Amino acid sequence: MAKPKIHTMEELAEAIGVSRPTLSRYFQDPTKVSKSSVARIVDGLERVEYTPNFFATRMNRKTTGLIGVIIPYLNDLFFTLLLEAIETAALRAGYTVITQCSHADPAIEKRAAETFLSMNVDGAIVAPLGDNSDMDVYARLNARLPFVLMDSRPKALRDVDFIGSDHRQSTGAITEYLCRVGPPPVFLAMPRVNFNALEREAAYIEKMHELGHEPQIVGARLYHEHDHFEAHGLAVLDDMFARGQLIESSILCANDRVAIGALRAASQHGLEPGAQRKGGLRIAGHDDYPLCPFTTPSLTTVAQNVTAIGQTAVDRLLEKLRAENISENQVIRLMDGILKIRESA
Amino acid sequence: MAKPKIHTMEELAEAIGVSRPTLSRYFQDPTKVSKSSVARIVDGLERVEYTPNFFATRMNRKTTGLIGVIIPYLNDLFFTLLLEAIETAALRAGYTVITQCSHADPAIEKRAAETFLSMNVDGAIVAPLGDNSDMDVYARLNARLPFVLMDSRPKALRDVDFIGSDHRQSTGAITEYLCRVGPPPVFLAMPRVNFNALEREAAYIEKMHELGHEPQIVGARLYHEHDHFEAHGLAVLDDMFARGQLIESSILCANDRVAIGALRAASQHGLEPGAQRKGGLRIAGHDDYPLCPFTTPSLTTVAQNVTAIGQTAVDRLLEKLRAENISENQVIRLMDGILKIRESA
Repeated sequence: MAKPKIHTMEELAEAIGVSRPTLSRYFQDPTKVSKSSVARIVDGLERVEYTPNFFATRMNRKTTGLIGVIIPYLNDLFFTLLLEAIETAALRAGYTVITQCSHADPAIEKRAAETFLSMNVDGAIVAPLGDNSDMDVYARLNARLPFVLMDSRPKALRDVDFIGSDHRQSTGAITEYLCRVGPPPVFLAMPRVNFNALEREAAYIEKMHELGHEPQIVGARLYHEHDHFEAHGLAVLDDMFARGQLIESSILCANDRVAIGALRAASQHGLEPGAQRKGGLRIAGHDDYPLCPFTTPSLTTVAQNVTAIGQTAVDRLLEKLRAENISENQVIRLMDGILKIRESA
Repeated sequence: MAKPKIHTMEELAEAIGVSRPTLSRYFQDPTKVSKSSVARIVDGLERVEYTPNFFATRMNRKTTGLIGVIIPYLNDLFFTLLLEAIETAALRAGYTVITQCSHADPAIEKRAAETFLSMNVDGAIVAPLGDNSDMDVYARLNARLPFVLMDSRPKALRDVDFIGSDHRQSTGAITEYLCRVGPPPVFLAMPRVNFNALEREAAYIEKMHELGHEPQIVGARLYHEHDHFEAHGLAVLDDMFARGQLIESSILCANDRVAIGALRAASQHGLEPGAQRKGGLRIAGHDDYPLCPFTTPSLTTVAQNVTAIGQTAVDRLLEKLRAENISENQVIRLMDGILKIRESA
């Protein structure tokens, strides 16, 4: 037999046999209702077909059970892994994650933050676009809600909690490794879309100076306006290899997607990165993009601990959600990168 | 000077100088308010700091402005491209997309669909997990909301609108191409996670019979429980190449991620797919994953028109949202795949 369909809270209260105010209190906070009423309501809900209205039941609650997350790009497996780690941790804690992608557009990013404010999400975790982000909307988020930044740290938001990688350590580690196994590396930059690009570049320069080598940076400017990272790495090195440049160098790419383009440029010019023990072309990346083990040659890189970043960002947000006073001490957690030595260097 | 902060609708009505009911009507439907009041409210909202409560303003509206989207995997650039196409189309039409990923778990998928029901989303677009999906919750979605399926079509939901690729055409086209340029292809299956895997396999068999060849399928079973597509392709072919099998075959992979693993197996065994004009190893895929131009060798494949699928799914949903009676004729749109001939075959 089909369950009776219920459309309003009045009908539901009648079907279950409790008063309308008791039912409302139950949906707002079950601990405010007597145990016998809870039992009767839980039992009653089994017997009818009724989906509580998300908006009505949450409008007067202190919590919506929602965590808002903003990521800058969707078509990037680093950010999807980060998002997966966040969703897994949030689900475990009973929260629903509402994700908005800013698609590299500050106007969409701003609209996403405003949607979170109007939805009364319990808290927000944001990987900001960077220099172009609307800092005012994030200042408002930070004033109104528990707020945690991840991945990238705009200067204007230096006082916000931050969970990310220690790019100084990670880029330093792979620079040192490359210096140990071959000639000192050239740095193939990515277009300066965010602070991480600059932090990695600075870390490379610092480590090179420390080891007594002259830093050399190529590819800091985009060849074509709308190129993706892979196309950028390919275009820069295709051009240089064609002129006989860098063909026996070590090349440290600012991220793995740039390095995948660099590997492609090498194969187009008949070069085999990592084939020689000493000397010869070497290519390395940063991040440990999921495809690194499957490229030809497989890509040497330094892994960001993306699962730990996502999990720690959720942990910190939950801590702030539980705290009475959210303006306590600032928390900054920088995770170490781990060398992944494969064939390309 | 800082804008005055407003916390309630009463305060807002007073600050703007309109009545509370007029203000409520404005948030529910601006066309129900006189033009002069609209002008006064719009002007007034500029002068104060107030974010309308998403839940309160939408609770009594006929529409929430939300479209719910479910995708099965996040760490797959096919689905992120599809999601991007949907978000772009929805944003243009003034809707906010709420995405939930089922992470290949039917329990999470069911919870996502229930969240959409309780949120009163205006409509839902779903790429279902497949055989394991909870069909009851989708039947309820379909009864309650405008609902469009994309990418994959469970048998139990044959009466729901569907937008996807014509796998018979696309797989047929690449099978035919491979037969034209070399030996008839072997089909490297993917683990049977959804209906597309089976549809492509069936289309391959049909085309092979049509051309008078004997179909041969390998890799239909997973080697390791939790392997991703790339690892699956690599494991199956590494094993076969080691035994001297398939080293001069044409291999059609069920998708590009499997093919990326297949390319890796080839390079591990010193094989160069596509290098010979006649005979020799050839590898091809399906989908046109964004990395296909950057693999070594670059991957020949058949592209799914992912942008058109996302756009058409949104168009169809908007059409249903506007219609008075949503139980009109069923719409099924199957997009043709387009051959992308590169180096690997």
